[in-house]
Amino acid sequence: MAGNRPATLGKLGIIAGSGTLPRRLIESCRAKGRDVFVVALRGAAEPETVENVAHAWCRIGAAATALELLRSNGVTELVLAGGIRRPSMASIRPDWRAAKFFAKVGYRMLGDDGLLSAVVKELEIEGFRLIGAHDLLDDGAEIAEGPLGQVAPSAEAAADIARGTRIARAVGGLDIGQAVVVQQGLVLGVEAIEGTDALLRRCAGLRREGPGGVLVKLQKPGQDARIDRPTIGAQTVTLAAEAGLQGIAVEAGATLLLDRDEIIRAADQAGLFVVGVRTE
Amino acid sequence: MAGNRPATLGKLGIIAGSGTLPRRLIESCRAKGRDVFVVALRGAAEPETVENVAHAWCRIGAAATALELLRSNGVTELVLAGGIRRPSMASIRPDWRAAKFFAKVGYRMLGDDGLLSAVVKELEIEGFRLIGAHDLLDDGAEIAEGPLGQVAPSAEAAADIARGTRIARAVGGLDIGQAVVVQQGLVLGVEAIEGTDALLRRCAGLRREGPGGVLVKLQKPGQDARIDRPTIGAQTVTLAAEAGLQGIAVEAGATLLLDRDEIIRAADQAGLFVVGVRTE
Repeated sequence: MAGNRPATLGKLGIIAGSGTLPRRLIESCRAKGRDVFVVALRGAAEPETVENVAHAWCRIGAAATALELLRSNGVTELVLAGGIRRPSMASIRPDWRAAKFFAKVGYRMLGDDGLLSAVVKELEIEGFRLIGAHDLLDDGAEIAEGPLGQVAPSAEAAADIARGTRIARAVGGLDIGQAVVVQQGLVLGVEAIEGTDALLRRCAGLRREGPGGVLVKLQKPGQDARIDRPTIGAQTVTLAAEAGLQGIAVEAGATLLLDRDEIIRAADQAGLFVVGVRTE
Repeated sequence: MAGNRPATLGKLGIIAGSGTLPRRLIESCRAKGRDVFVVALRGAAEPETVENVAHAWCRIGAAATALELLRSNGVTELVLAGGIRRPSMASIRPDWRAAKFFAKVGYRMLGDDGLLSAVVKELEIEGFRLIGAHDLLDDGAEIAEGPLGQVAPSAEAAADIARGTRIARAVGGLDIGQAVVVQQGLVLGVEAIEGTDALLRRCAGLRREGPGGVLVKLQKPGQDARIDRPTIGAQTVTLAAEAGLQGIAVEAGATLLLDRDEIIRAADQAGLFVVGVRTE
């Protein structure tokens, strides 16, 4: 947890993708007086992420440049944060360093998680210490077992959570995605590369009459906890409500809550539950 | 195969859902001089399916009515054909016979395939002989191993077919869906309840640069071959082309081709492959 880390840890490198997580890390470091240097990934990170902070933009394929930027800015500890829409090999235009990496690991044969794990290993070989975003955020970014807000799952929702958990585990084990939507035992949708928001939007048109379904979002089995940790925000709650769901179940101790207070507010207002579950 | 069946088999009952398959069966029986009686499922079968043929409309929940209709019309052999958008328990309004069935099998705990298998078993207990639609159609409705039209998969597409096959097997084993789309090793989408057409439509917006992906559609492992056999038609080819795919792989000997000639014409025209694969 962040509270146990001394403020003298040195400069933190943040490799930033899309969404609000990179900015939250920047602000968390700023509040603790820790220096950061951000490598913003072109086509992924938003411009507002790197406002008023030391940073450089970098293509995903420009690995040599990224490594040089991190080293010349004195980074030793590194965090990967935010989303990356995985590009095809044809569009990635790898520089020599990225090409060497892909030749080693093989691009095609790796799922998202496999590829990210390989990237982490490679960065460790290069001498960086990789940490998880959750280790840099407050304890409030974690979810414990049980309901987060005022609503708890009904018995019917609990049955859908149980089925959704089995399916999300299996689908995650294939390195396809983290999330599924289940209603009355029916699998309405499985997340692949489109992401959770798109999954929820499409499930709005697939819902059956009667009690609404649940979103179950879990860490992939064997996934490196430092990368691509399942994340939900107030937006997830809003979309779940619009899809007619009764609530959201995420993995206790293995999920990042963006804006915990906003999630609770949105869930209570919409009458949805957000619950942390243990899956083993 | 149909050619081996005598024309004196007696009246065929067709329980008809959506799509063109029920009408094809009706026409195939007509060409062979075999009588049919159609139970058209309300909310699933289209009106044109039952034009000029002995039939009655029936709600999905009205099991006693359906059984009575079949018996009083002298049906002993029965085929289930066409799609059914599975309703929620809340909307199914089961009559006493359907309620008895659901009490026995449990609605919630069954996936699509599990539920259909239970329906088939129940119909057999009621004394009907269940046969598969493919047994009533010409040999042309089957696909053998290898390409159907003029285009064959590239080495790259073959790698995506191999990955897609592994994933479709696993996803089918969970009774989620039959189809997946893979591009350059990435799983762009997994079919759940939305069906293959909707999967293809959404993958159009998810494709990466570079060589296009493949649709892999397989029978679910352990699925009763008489029901819900994977089906493709010219529409599948058109949507695959619009999604930027290189082609379609289906299970040899376990797939129904609606309009074989039209599929070949559409595939050759769009430069797509349609290939039968063995998966074991």
